[in-house]
Amino acid sequence: MDRVAEVADLVTVALDELLPRADGPESRLTEAMRYAALGPGKRLRPFFALEAANLFDIDERTVLRAACALECVHAYSLVHDDLPAMDNDDMRRGRPTLHRAYDEATAILAGDALQTAAFDIVLHPDTHDDPAVRCELAARLSMASGARGMAGGQMIDLLGVRDDLGGVARMQRLKTGALFNYAFEIPLIIADARESHRQALTSFAHDIGLAYQIVDDLLDAEGDAEVLGKASGKDAAQGKTTLVTLLGVDQARQRVAHLADQARAHLDPFGPDAEILRASVDYVLERRS
Amino acid sequence: MDRVAEVADLVTVALDELLPRADGPESRLTEAMRYAALGPGKRLRPFFALEAANLFDIDERTVLRAACALECVHAYSLVHDDLPAMDNDDMRRGRPTLHRAYDEATAILAGDALQTAAFDIVLHPDTHDDPAVRCELAARLSMASGARGMAGGQMIDLLGVRDDLGGVARMQRLKTGALFNYAFEIPLIIADARESHRQALTSFAHDIGLAYQIVDDLLDAEGDAEVLGKASGKDAAQGKTTLVTLLGVDQARQRVAHLADQARAHLDPFGPDAEILRASVDYVLERRS
Repeated sequence: MDRVAEVADLVTVALDELLPRADGPESRLTEAMRYAALGPGKRLRPFFALEAANLFDIDERTVLRAACALECVHAYSLVHDDLPAMDNDDMRRGRPTLHRAYDEATAILAGDALQTAAFDIVLHPDTHDDPAVRCELAARLSMASGARGMAGGQMIDLLGVRDDLGGVARMQRLKTGALFNYAFEIPLIIADARESHRQALTSFAHDIGLAYQIVDDLLDAEGDAEVLGKASGKDAAQGKTTLVTLLGVDQARQRVAHLADQARAHLDPFGPDAEILRASVDYVLERRS
Repeated sequence: MDRVAEVADLVTVALDELLPRADGPESRLTEAMRYAALGPGKRLRPFFALEAANLFDIDERTVLRAACALECVHAYSLVHDDLPAMDNDDMRRGRPTLHRAYDEATAILAGDALQTAAFDIVLHPDTHDDPAVRCELAARLSMASGARGMAGGQMIDLLGVRDDLGGVARMQRLKTGALFNYAFEIPLIIADARESHRQALTSFAHDIGLAYQIVDDLLDAEGDAEVLGKASGKDAAQGKTTLVTLLGVDQARQRVAHLADQARAHLDPFGPDAEILRASVDYVLERRS
């Protein structure tokens, strides 16, 4: 989808400007941060933030900076998840993972500093004239990322304690859902959106996030490692319970189709303004990597 | 010093209230965060924040919450610095390090989530009624912690690229100095302090931070591991260049004494109000652990 690629370029250029670049020996750290954040990526979360922002009359500069902060948090989580002590992955987006390209210590530090950079970017006066908006954007980002959000979900994933659909869904709501949801919170906060719009986009975020995760699990089960840019078949090899292992491939596919229908329906209140967002549902769910 | 112990208790109680406590299986994560942040510690950075705050007429609640956020960042940095891929330490503050008490993956995640918790705490409306103040407190914390602050200093430390006094001083200004400086920035931001007070406390922070670090290096060179609560003699064993290895013990001690005199002199503008802060210089520099 052209618009996804367009936004990805926009975000990469913005991130390149926003990420720190050190002069001294610590430039190794800022280079590692850039390797992780500026490499190839769909920038799906920023895409959702920017497309949802088009439903409101708000300043794109603010959305773009907050979307870059969100992408930094996503990038840091991938760097740390890939570490030997976590998922121990060698490849990511078709390139060596950060600890492979650099070393473990640098990867830990670069993940740490990418998280810090996220807050740095969103809190900077350039993000919005009103500090209340910057504060709210940063506060919601910290909620989405922390022990009650993404990090909590990763803990559950590591523990593997999820034998039923409810357990898996809860894990995904935290691990993947919280940041997907934040993508839509960005325009909602900036626009100070009314409750009906808030509910519509929150529901859309929920359905598209869950569908995205099931597609991820399907790709892991069936995908081609070369197209994926990372190893496939990992869930089965590690005995991980996912919606695909619980439901089987056919039922998982049906669930994705159902979530897609539901997601599109949530966009009805926005009429034709939501055309690209509506079209993105198919793009997200028919991806091969 | 009684006041240091008093503040340490105050901060530990506050942190206990402020840190998240999860119900589900991710409670392992929040317990690990608590192990790292609530264990024994001098809470020296919060002490400086609270004592410096006494020089101004400001709300202690705001200072305490920002000081707790600062302590979370300090705690996260210790957890990650102790990891096998970094300094590979087994003991910290007389107890097993977090990755020893739990496991490496949990320690990485808990460090991540402690950083997030820091921003969560400082950005919360309870910290201050004015979002501009919360925003500024959080923005300065991110600057002090990131690639141009603490994380950058840790990168230089890991690389070991510092053969001369200038290089060591720069590394320490980033690795230790940035967070020490932030302790004093907390009251300066809240009080919107005048330039002369700002300069006085920034200079005090610089001198006390550097002196603290040299004492740390002296303790590593000469200290008793049992009193220290962690391994000693590590710098020499790892061939690390410190001010002590560069200057020798006697000259390093002289430099500490000189920095202490200078630090006390910076407090002159505050008169008798700075009595405890003045007395803390000796406490900090005569510590055995």
